[in-house]
Amino acid sequence: MSRLSSLDQAKQTFPDWVAGKQQRIEDLLDLCLPNANIAPTRLHSAMRYSALDGGKRVRALLCYAAAELCACEPKIADAAACAVELIHANSLVHDDMPCMDDDDLRRGKASCHKQYDDATALLVGDALQSLAFEVISQAQIYADSQLNASQQMSLVYLLASAAGSTGMAGGQGIDLASAGKSLSQTELETMHQMKTGALIQASILLGAISAPKSDLATIKQFAIIIGLAFQVVDDILDVEADSLTLGKTAGKDADNNKPTYVTILGLDAAKQHARALYEQAINALAPLGEQAQRLRELAGYITQRSF
Amino acid sequence: MSRLSSLDQAKQTFPDWVAGKQQRIEDLLDLCLPNANIAPTRLHSAMRYSALDGGKRVRALLCYAAAELCACEPKIADAAACAVELIHANSLVHDDMPCMDDDDLRRGKASCHKQYDDATALLVGDALQSLAFEVISQAQIYADSQLNASQQMSLVYLLASAAGSTGMAGGQGIDLASAGKSLSQTELETMHQMKTGALIQASILLGAISAPKSDLATIKQFAIIIGLAFQVVDDILDVEADSLTLGKTAGKDADNNKPTYVTILGLDAAKQHARALYEQAINALAPLGEQAQRLRELAGYITQRSF
Repeated sequence: MSRLSSLDQAKQTFPDWVAGKQQRIEDLLDLCLPNANIAPTRLHSAMRYSALDGGKRVRALLCYAAAELCACEPKIADAAACAVELIHANSLVHDDMPCMDDDDLRRGKASCHKQYDDATALLVGDALQSLAFEVISQAQIYADSQLNASQQMSLVYLLASAAGSTGMAGGQGIDLASAGKSLSQTELETMHQMKTGALIQASILLGAISAPKSDLATIKQFAIIIGLAFQVVDDILDVEADSLTLGKTAGKDADNNKPTYVTILGLDAAKQHARALYEQAINALAPLGEQAQRLRELAGYITQRSF
Repeated sequence: MSRLSSLDQAKQTFPDWVAGKQQRIEDLLDLCLPNANIAPTRLHSAMRYSALDGGKRVRALLCYAAAELCACEPKIADAAACAVELIHANSLVHDDMPCMDDDDLRRGKASCHKQYDDATALLVGDALQSLAFEVISQAQIYADSQLNASQQMSLVYLLASAAGSTGMAGGQGIDLASAGKSLSQTELETMHQMKTGALIQASILLGAISAPKSDLATIKQFAIIIGLAFQVVDDILDVEADSLTLGKTAGKDADNNKPTYVTILGLDAAKQHARALYEQAINALAPLGEQAQRLRELAGYITQRSF
């Protein structure tokens, strides 16, 4: 695994930095997921199928960028980045199940319950969530003991509350209840703030908390804005991109009669909203100077696909 | 909430001690579960429906008894007891779902997916798991700061590994794969050691770790034996008790063509095995003297229903 210093990281081009961190998180997940030849083999194989080799790893990238902002080497954020991707994978596997969104396609391949079966997918999601907290409890191994137990407890608290009923799972609950109903923009924002925003925000804060010192108030402000922007972009891409580009079934929200930023604002206003949130995110980072460069680039990476 | 000293606890009769601790865990769960009028109300209502007012709370009782063995007041084990019951509730809700055991009855009432719906039950399980880790991350609140962050990290590690793919979820995975197959007694024990034993063991160890000082090696020996005994008794009761007594559908294992201790050993030998495990459990506690009284009584409480 690369052991680049913070100076070396700053010299990299953004695409090289992204590719490096994507490889790093892939290697880490490969390391912490039980081997597929350990019993129960089907469950472990399905966990690896669902968590490896997929996605842009936006949450891990945000986590690493926040640690880098605090002048930390990536290893200090390895456990947090890994844990947040495991929680994300847990939510995708359960979201795709027939009783939820019933989606056959995920990250360009068959979703977990299609490739395996519903019962296995249920256990996969549960076990990925447990593994996320197990990884944090062993964070000092990844970070060469540079994290203390008190930081680890903050990571557990932040991730658990972002994943639970007042975060991601809660947002999914509101989403379920909202099918076929009309929501105001405020109601929609509350839902997305929980469903997607909470874990995006947590990704950034987990990286910052892993660092010995950080300006949490400023970082939190950025995290909230980018959490919102992420969902606006997702709604736009659901309408504009095809399934091949998305790696998941496009147009699902409209098919499911679910309110989105596009259905509420219209496509043009949704794009304008994404642009405005990008500007706000960049402004929020202003006090942090040069060291926030990767977070600025990630804000562009996340939002500009939809402009 | 009662604030009985360890001396007062020792004076109580066993039934009074059990009733007191059952009430204590009920009060704690009520406190840590989000109120049902907080959005998403349906999800929160379903979480409360699934986690409150049910079960013998054997895992919490074991956790408190282990803390008491170490001369601790119950409050030191409150977070651990609460977390382990939340993980147990998560597993019951998901186990009962149509894609798993498809059971309509749990703790004498409709199972979560019957009372609500499948999607809600899926989210309830996920959110109860997150809440378990959130509660541990706030353990110092419950224990008046008598737990340090390093103990909390041990609790997270132990609970996460007991719940995950090499513990409870893994055992369920093997259980799924074993339907219709014949297993040797060793294979059956491996499955149950993971499926039920891991969390029963963890309950005891979580209580012991919450204490400032404990003889973990001896306690662990007892925990392994009682974890096994628990499942043998469960298999016997599945055959002998009716659904009303069990509070869940009786005879499910036979109906699902699942190997159990009764199908492998026969009913009489299974009962003999339960008796032998009880004796072993009592012997394992011998070095711990008088203070292990509650654990001894619990060993009887767990196993003697099947003699």
